[in-house]
Amino acid sequence: MDTSRLEAFSDGVFAIAITLLVLEIHVPAPGSGSLGHELVAQWPSYAAFIVSFLTIGIIWINHHAMLRRIARADHSILIWNLALLMTISALPFTTALMASYLKESEGESLAASIYSGSFLLVTVVFLAMNHHILFRRVEFLGGDLDDAIRRLAIIRGAIGLLPYLAATVLAFLSPYLSLAICAAVAGYYASPHAAPGGSSARA
Amino acid sequence: MDTSRLEAFSDGVFAIAITLLVLEIHVPAPGSGSLGHELVAQWPSYAAFIVSFLTIGIIWINHHAMLRRIARADHSILIWNLALLMTISALPFTTALMASYLKESEGESLAASIYSGSFLLVTVVFLAMNHHILFRRVEFLGGDLDDAIRRLAIIRGAIGLLPYLAATVLAFLSPYLSLAICAAVAGYYASPHAAPGGSSARA
Amino acid sequence: MDTSRLEAFSDGVFAIAITLLVLEIHVPAPGSGSLGHELVAQWPSYAAFIVSFLTIGIIWINHHAMLRRIARADHSILIWNLALLMTISALPFTTALMASYLKESEGESLAASIYSGSFLLVTVVFLAMNHHILFRRVEFLGGDLDDAIRRLAIIRGAIGLLPYLAATVLAFLSPYLSLAICAAVAGYYASPHAAPGGSSARA
Amino acid sequence: MDTSRLEAFSDGVFAIAITLLVLEIHVPAPGSGSLGHELVAQWPSYAAFIVSFLTIGIIWINHHAMLRRIARADHSILIWNLALLMTISALPFTTALMASYLKESEGESLAASIYSGSFLLVTVVFLAMNHHILFRRVEFLGGDLDDAIRRLAIIRGAIGLLPYLAATVLAFLSPYLSLAICAAVAGYYASPHAAPGGSSARA
Repeated sequence: MDTSRLEAFSDGVFAIAITLLVLEIHVPAPGSGSLGHELVAQWPSYAAFIVSFLTIGIIWINHHAMLRRIARADHSILIWNLALLMTISALPFTTALMASYLKESEGESLAASIYSGSFLLVTVVFLAMNHHILFRRVEFLGGDLDDAIRRLAIIRGAIGLLPYLAATVLAFLSPYLSLAICAAVAGYYASPHAAPGGSSARA
Repeated sequence: MDTSRLEAFSDGVFAIAITLLVLEIHVPAPGSGSLGHELVAQWPSYAAFIVSFLTIGIIWINHHAMLRRIARADHSILIWNLALLMTISALPFTTALMASYLKESEGESLAASIYSGSFLLVTVVFLAMNHHILFRRVEFLGGDLDDAIRRLAIIRGAIGLLPYLAATVLAFLSPYLSLAICAAVAGYYASPHAAPGGSSARA
Repeated sequence: MDTSRLEAFSDGVFAIAITLLVLEIHVPAPGSGSLGHELVAQWPSYAAFIVSFLTIGIIWINHHAMLRRIARADHSILIWNLALLMTISALPFTTALMASYLKESEGESLAASIYSGSFLLVTVVFLAMNHHILFRRVEFLGGDLDDAIRRLAIIRGAIGLLPYLAATVLAFLSPYLSLAICAAVAGYYASPHAAPGGSSARA
Repeated sequence: MDTSRLEAFSDGVFAIAITLLVLEIHVPAPGSGSLGHELVAQWPSYAAFIVSFLTIGIIWINHHAMLRRIARADHSILIWNLALLMTISALPFTTALMASYLKESEGESLAASIYSGSFLLVTVVFLAMNHHILFRRVEFLGGDLDDAIRRLAIIRGAIGLLPYLAATVLAFLSPYLSLAICAAVAGYYASPHAAPGGSSARA
């Protein structure tokens, strides 16, 4: 299979998952009090929406960069891609879970840990898929990729796991801290400093 | 990244956000009174649906025109585009909010202001992204764009902010007036008079 | 604007509207009685799903045929297309309305009339857009289209309005009859007899 | 109609149906008990999500392979494809049904049978469409396809029906067994052993 239809299908799943996030933000029922208060009180929904939206958007950018390297895909790549899309499409659920529980006095840590953990899972599957492409399907790689460059790509990806691992664990200390770490990761990758520029970025 | 996959992803988000709008229109529960009365009573839902649908559609047309000018996109353009899509994908929420509160005796002004304000936000982000492309990423622009033409494009965009700014403020005077302004803007841009034709339209 | 991105966006809206139809079919709440009975009792939901799915699918096929005739689109065609997509994206609502009320003792006629009426509206807008393209934007038409062929296309489209007009009116006699007419129209266009084959089909 | 827009539309429906699956997983209402317990208790939702996601993904891969064989599509292929997409888009409903009832003491067998039966239906329609293309629309097939290879493709497809047939029937013995069979089928086709490689796979 050439990668264009694979990209189109993946783009569709990314676009739908990212747009479904808004369904998690609820309109307060009329008559249940001051609308202003109600809207302010559900700030975790907005925070979760923004963090998840940016994160999915950044994964989409990276996904594009990953698939751009190969000209066609075999069965194993299709299945890896399907596994990745499955973890992506679960994010509207974990986002809604976090938003619903962040301010609760019970379950808030578990919800935040599952939220960060879902980003960790996406990143792990992404890394595994990238490793599969770079080291097991070398024959599909378009250009000549230096071994050092390929190793560097994996190492950089593995380093990207660390903040999500921390957020998943630290959620039991403070769910707010956990959310802040996820927000910081999204902010970092969205900033100009994270723009690919060096040679490693091309790998 | 060349712009074709960026366009495909953006088209997906636009198409989903515009189609999710319908979920805001509720089927009246059977047995709760005359269906005809119930359906007429929820006219704000239809008005909000039509205004938001047209507005998102027109933004989509303008978004296409904006991206058509560039042949490829760097990290900064991708992130600007992501920010724009985020504001677009929030519109089903603000649309549902306005529709739910327009006829209420409390919260109706705030809801209408948030509704108009969400269009204002989309327009501001659109203008900022356009400015970024036209003045900071001149090297990506396909053809030769005269400096005066580029300035004119930004000025015209800035003028487009004014009615939304008015609608956001005037919502506290009358939410109906605020909705009417948003409807008038959509109607204006959908009319043949707004069709691009002069030289400035090509910038 | 060339028509390829217009088609991609339209395809997205068609695909989302057609897939959102399933959200109208509800899972009976566990413990509320025999699941078998409950599932059989909501047969209007399945009937409405099937009829609306086929109808949207057939409109999609016709939409493709309509846009295939032109090589590019101006502002007026974009706005006509937006109006058409708006009527399409309202169909999940009218479908849910019909399914909810068909077996009720009040509102069932109005719901069925609105359901048929929404198909009538889609068909009217489609016909108006087709007329606009065939007679007002002749310069965009790819090949040489005989005047008689163009007239025939409009006449055939106008004839297609009649059953929906009948279904909209007859709903007040019997909502089941109204649904049956819509089903018959979908069945007719899905049958091999409706496959385009003659010269008029190419217009 | 050439197949590229048919593929784009189909990809859209596949991508939306697969991403809507997540809406079936509910966030437990805060305050209703230990979040951990609640989340563990709804494991059928996760199981149904994973099995349905993988199954739709694999059908998408096969759908691509089926359409790749033909260069253009006539009315009959469009209608077959629409019928296939209809069965696909019903899967979020049957998935939610199974997830809601698996642990209930009434309706669980029927729900599991409908779930497996919906996969059976998809597979039957897929097989019928493939047969239609391979034997009734031979003139659309790109390359030269040996008669034996075409027969083999149908035979292999028919064998693929058997486990779903078993799962549909055996649901009345044990809904868990029925789900396990569907999971096993998805797992088998996702495994490297199922990767197409022999000559029959090219048919």
